[in-house]
Amino acid sequence: MQAELDQLCVVLVAPRNPLNIGAAARAMSNFGFLHLRVVNPYDVAFREARSAVGASQLLANAEEYKSVADAVADCTLVVGTTAVRHRELQHPLKRLEYGARVIRKQLGSGRVALLFGTEKFGLATKDLSHCHWLMRIPTREEHISMNLGQAVAVCLYELSRDPKAAQRPEKVKRASAGEVERINEVLLQALRASGYVNPRAESLTEDKVRRLVCRLNLQPEDAELWLGMLRQMLWKIRGGGK
Amino acid sequence: MQAELDQLCVVLVAPRNPLNIGAAARAMSNFGFLHLRVVNPYDVAFREARSAVGASQLLANAEEYKSVADAVADCTLVVGTTAVRHRELQHPLKRLEYGARVIRKQLGSGRVALLFGTEKFGLATKDLSHCHWLMRIPTREEHISMNLGQAVAVCLYELSRDPKAAQRPEKVKRASAGEVERINEVLLQALRASGYVNPRAESLTEDKVRRLVCRLNLQPEDAELWLGMLRQMLWKIRGGGK
Repeated sequence: MQAELDQLCVVLVAPRNPLNIGAAARAMSNFGFLHLRVVNPYDVAFREARSAVGASQLLANAEEYKSVADAVADCTLVVGTTAVRHRELQHPLKRLEYGARVIRKQLGSGRVALLFGTEKFGLATKDLSHCHWLMRIPTREEHISMNLGQAVAVCLYELSRDPKAAQRPEKVKRASAGEVERINEVLLQALRASGYVNPRAESLTEDKVRRLVCRLNLQPEDAELWLGMLRQMLWKIRGGGK
Repeated sequence: MQAELDQLCVVLVAPRNPLNIGAAARAMSNFGFLHLRVVNPYDVAFREARSAVGASQLLANAEEYKSVADAVADCTLVVGTTAVRHRELQHPLKRLEYGARVIRKQLGSGRVALLFGTEKFGLATKDLSHCHWLMRIPTREEHISMNLGQAVAVCLYELSRDPKAAQRPEKVKRASAGEVERINEVLLQALRASGYVNPRAESLTEDKVRRLVCRLNLQPEDAELWLGMLRQMLWKIRGGGK
């Protein structure tokens, strides 16, 4: 898996704000993409960006290029990002959800460049001409322009996202029926002792309480806590400590 | 759909840096979540954050609270975000891919609070005690701590993500077989006229060229461009302009 992530180069074209370069580096490090290329940064001191929290090494290793052509020369797939939906579309445009799938497949067989343009205007038409296709993050029509660091984070998240994880919840331990039944017993004793249970409806109340406790879906530790609290209350109700 | 997005409140607990609050607001606006709540911000002047590009109204409408309890009082589901995988887990922990699904379902029937903690330390144990469960962004073990604005962007992207869009590519128009065949004809004429085609292998070459052009998967506009360029070259090869 890391071998495939290593095939992706994030290419920032003419970024103006070093803080955004640092933020991009941090997101790359978070999601395991370690190869940053920068084309003509406006501020040459970008390597000191404080926003690259935990990613200073990645930033130090960033490669600088004079042109997009040089930056993508060794890549077999070049993908540009854009917020614009139409730009008189001279390129195929894929939504991130699908584009990321296509990129992941390609990472198995060659290096891929993912281009992000300058903060205000995105990629220039000339930069786009190096791209095989474009990708857009599905934002709201009324507000399509994302912060550069956030756009990088969202794209890399989708690239490293595990579709199977959406189906499969992390397992939660549940208390056993026996543990739950012990709670029922003590709770019922406490309810009886405090006069909550009408003796003529005792069986009905028992069932109601059992269903109520069952719906709590308690975890083992929580079941133990409840049992301890109820026992203490029962002890006090029965006159303990007097 | 917007009605459901309106059921989500993003709650920033004790954020220190106004730039991060602004960045969170911008990402919220990008993905269509318009309700921001802020608990005890360190800098009370956060509403002027310049980073809220395009989201100044959202930031102006942000509600301020003195406690997490007050900020989530009207919510039927309270979810905390954490980078930590274990924190001696007193809460169920879901990965973002799955947690977002559970939140989306709940948005149909009640208000949901999504909590983000302070930049350095995340949510405090006391804040977590208000949460039904926790959610984590699947980052690399070696670098789990994300920038606040980027974490908000990634969570909201996953919440507004369309799983069907991963299956269904945006449609790309392809040139018709007839358009492609016109290219073949002109290209072959140009190749014959320039001496590329060995007459004894003409049929083989024709097939090879046809497959080559077919594999280009040309779009209609591109087919037209190629046809124009090839015709011009053919004209020149045949002595045009002399």
